[in-house]
Formats: sequence, C-alpha cells, structure tokens
Amino acid sequence: MFLLGLVVEAMTAALAAGRRSMDWVGVCLLGSVTALGGGSVRDVLLGHHPLTWVAHPWYLLLTCGAALLTIPLARYMHRFKRLFLLLDAVGLVTFTVVGCNVAQSMDMPFIIVIVSGMITGCAGGVLRDMLCTTIPLLFRAELYATVSVATGILYVGGQQAGFDHDPVMLVAMITGLSIRMLALRFGWSMPKFVYTRD
Amino acid sequence: MFLLGLVVEAMTAALAAGRRSMDWVGVCLLGSVTALGGGSVRDVLLGHHPLTWVAHPWYLLLTCGAALLTIPLARYMHRFKRLFLLLDAVGLVTFTVVGCNVAQSMDMPFIIVIVSGMITGCAGGVLRDMLCTTIPLLFRAELYATVSVATGILYVGGQQAGFDHDPVMLVAMITGLSIRMLALRFGWSMPKFVYTRD
Amino acid sequence: MFLLGLVVEAMTAALAAGRRSMDWVGVCLLGSVTALGGGSVRDVLLGHHPLTWVAHPWYLLLTCGAALLTIPLARYMHRFKRLFLLLDAVGLVTFTVVGCNVAQSMDMPFIIVIVSGMITGCAGGVLRDMLCTTIPLLFRAELYATVSVATGILYVGGQQAGFDHDPVMLVAMITGLSIRMLALRFGWSMPKFVYTRD
Repeated sequence: MFLLGLVVEAMTAALAAGRRSMDWVGVCLLGSVTALGGGSVRDVLLGHHPLTWVAHPWYLLLTCGAALLTIPLARYMHRFKRLFLLLDAVGLVTFTVVGCNVAQSMDMPFIIVIVSGMITGCAGGVLRDMLCTTIPLLFRAELYATVSVATGILYVGGQQAGFDHDPVMLVAMITGLSIRMLALRFGWSMPKFVYTRD
Repeated sequence: MFLLGLVVEAMTAALAAGRRSMDWVGVCLLGSVTALGGGSVRDVLLGHHPLTWVAHPWYLLLTCGAALLTIPLARYMHRFKRLFLLLDAVGLVTFTVVGCNVAQSMDMPFIIVIVSGMITGCAGGVLRDMLCTTIPLLFRAELYATVSVATGILYVGGQQAGFDHDPVMLVAMITGLSIRMLALRFGWSMPKFVYTRD
Repeated sequence: MFLLGLVVEAMTAALAAGRRSMDWVGVCLLGSVTALGGGSVRDVLLGHHPLTWVAHPWYLLLTCGAALLTIPLARYMHRFKRLFLLLDAVGLVTFTVVGCNVAQSMDMPFIIVIVSGMITGCAGGVLRDMLCTTIPLLFRAELYATVSVATGILYVGGQQAGFDHDPVMLVAMITGLSIRMLALRFGWSMPKFVYTRD
C-alpha cells in the first residue's frame, strides 16, 4: 500500500507537471519530490537518517517510472478519476500511519507523532504546489490535513488506550478514508478565514 | 519574550492567510510554519537536533491557538497595528539573540553565529511568503534582515570585546529595535537593484 | 573551479534579483542561497554535517561579494553573456562532480551518488526560482538536469569500470560541458508533456 501510495502521488504530480507544460525531466522531478517529499521533510525535521529513498534508492526509479508512464496514459486517466481519488486517499492514510510509526520508533511525544504523520501525508503535496508556484491546495481545500490528523489521533490514541495494533490501524485508516471520500462526495470543507482589510 | 514573538509571528501569518482566503487548517499551518520555521531552518542547517518544537511540542499548540484566535480578533487588530509592528520587532531581535545563542553553544565561528541569528529571525517570514507565492518581503523591503544582522553583530561582538553578557544583550536588542522602529517611521530602506535588460 | 562556480551562480542570481527590483540585502541573500543552496540541500538530505558554508564561512562573504559586485557591473554583463553561459556550465559540471564525491565518501549506492551530484548542481537554481516565485527553469528548459545526470553517470560509471579517477573526471566534465553548450547553441531540449484537460 505504501508503494501504491508512492505511485499514485507521482502520477497525480505528473499531471500537475503536464498542466504547466513541463518537460520530461520536470515530470520525473516533480513526481519524485511529491511522492517522496513528505517522508523526506519528516526525516529531516526529526533528524531520522538515512531518508527512505536513500536507504531504498529504487523508490526513485519507481516514482520516476510512474511519472513518465503518466505521459502516454494521461489521455485515459480522466476515466479513472474516481479510482485515482480513492487511491490518493489510501495513500494519504497509509503515509500518515507510516509517519506515525517513524516518530513512535524514536519515542516522540504524542503531538509530535501526530504531526509526523501529517507531515508525511501532506508535505509532498505542499512541495508540489510550491514548485508549481500555486498556493498549496492543502491550505485552502477539502479536508485533507484534517483527515491525516484524525487518522493519526485514532491510530496513536487507540494504541495508547490499550487496543491491539492491527485492528486499531485498520479502524483508523478506514475512518480516515471514509471521511476523505465523504468530504469529496459532499464537498465538505473547513470554514475559510477571509480578511480583506489592507 | 520568545513566546510573545511566537504568538505575534503566528498572528501576523494568520492575517496573511486570511488575505488569501485560506481555511482554518491553512491558518494553523501557516501560523505555525511562520513562527517556528526560522528556528527549524536554523536547526536543520546546523544539524542541531531535536528542533525546538520537537523538544517542546506545546509550542505547536501555542502557535495554532494564536493563529486561530486571530480569526475572531482580526476585525479589531488594525487598531493595534502600531503595537503589532512593535511586538513584531521585539520578536525579530529576540529570535536573533536566541539564534546566536544556539550557534554559540555549538562553538560556531563568528560569521555563522550572525547568520544563525539572522536565519532564526527572518526565515519564518520567507517560508510564509513562499507558501503564499509572493516574493519574500525580506528581499525587497524595509530594513529587516539588516536589523537582525546589526543586532547579532552588536550582541556577539560585544561579548567578544569582553563586556558582560546581559548589558550587551540589552544594548544590542534595544539598538536593533530602535533601528527597526525608526526605519518603519521614516520609511528607511536599502537601495534597490533594478535590472531591466532581457 | 568550485569557487568560480560559486561566483558565477551568485552573479546570475543577482541579475535575477535585479529583474525583480530586490534591494541589496535581497541580492546578497538570493546570490548566497543560489550558489550554496544545492550543496546545502544535498548535505541536509544525506545528513552530511557540517554544511560546506558552515565549515568554510568565508564562502558566504564570497557569494555576497560576488552578488553585490554584480550591481555596478550589470550594465556591462550582457557583453559577456556567452562567457557567463560557459562559466555557468563549468559550474554545473563541477558542482555535479563535487556532489558525487560527497555521496561516494559516505559509501552511498550508485543511484544516490548520481542524485547527489544532480542535487548539488541543480537545487540552487530551483531555490532561486522558488524565491522569485517562478516555476523552476529546470523543470521546463534546455538540458540542464540531464547534463548533470549524464556527467554523474560517466564520472561514477567510469570509476566503477576501473578507469583512473582523473582522466574519467576530465572526460565526464568535458562531455557534460559539451552537451550543455551544444544544447544552448542548437536549442536542444527535452520533449514537453502538455496536459490540458481539467
């Protein structure tokens, strides 16, 4: 599921690259930065070395390959838009759980474990948007960071409440996934803060 | 004063988020990244782990709280604009001194100590502007980085010249604060470099 | 050659700063971030401390000096445009080799050594473009990252094939340099991926 998440994030980033007419190198780079960026930001902030892709360099080949494969497949991808949104949400909750695990393995306190999960799930998309010079979607759109935080709290809180790891993880991921899909389906979003003075 | 600096930076970033109609999550994230980003960039570059907010996770609650509190308070904040500019300048010189201290505790050479202070004082605002996709204000506006560098040089140079720590710190901070407030009052700024060819 | 690369990168970044009417502080900062940013990103990702400019603080004076010197020289620089493009390409292949060496000294696998070279050669320009809020040129322009990767593969592959270090390095750098200059001369570029749907 982690690898699936990498592939899906790389492919959606490749589409974003195509919307800005980037060349094939840009497609590879944007795909890899988006897919692996969240974990990299987490590891750099927590001082957790080596980074995932440094320990497993073939992840880079996977993300570059997925990004390049998007170029010929792009014309068919809109038919699978819903599938992609679902897989993207699966990636989000998987990355969140992975990020929580990394911080737990470093004996970090509760808040940092949750933040580590959120960074892993969300920072890749923020980097993608910054490289495309658009204001990060995360900061203005449907429950995305919120889903990550909710998944993390359920996952870590459930473990601390004494439940077994596997069922807690399953419940947390399915809950997060459900919130995300319902938010997409019904257009749920956080209230906006609009400030116009000066 | 450090905590006050965090609160003020988070609140001004929240206003910037509001100007771009971000949602509440974006307000929290932008506020936290701005307030804690300068110290994080410094610690990552110097290899100084754990980061401040990793060691003190409740700082994250403080910055998120300050950012969220800005939403209901925004309509009254323009009345205290001068107070905010003053507190922002207090935050700048305080962050600068904190950043110098971190580099000094790692036995860094003079230049790196000054740069560490400047990064701590200024990098949060650069991250904020990058996330808002505007060219960092720091690169084109009133003496801000300059104030930070001046404060750092006075503070570190004064110590090296043999003066006691506390009076030197006080003089450096008050001098930096004064330059910043005078620059705001009289519209002082660095000369610009305008290049139009090609 | 490494120092020459720093100077040239700082000067081209200073021109970019001038095109956006930044002030002298912005010129210094953008010049330094561009020249030293590639190596810094590499070192932070690989956990390779201290960073180059932390170990050699006078590099910061060099990049600030080169950036500031660009201000009075800017009006004459267009006459040396070709020379600058050549020196910029020399910087690219030099930085690439330096980046490969750093990863080799940490016993990194082949792919990471190549990526380390590419990050060292290219990430500074990406940071420059992000700070100027333009989509990184690297993602959409003439063979730049490609030159870096080709240089790295020749350099590292040649060593692994048993050739002596110095001739391999020379061949790799001259080949990279030639590709870059030919690409500029004949307008070679990677194919673009254009995606317009939605």
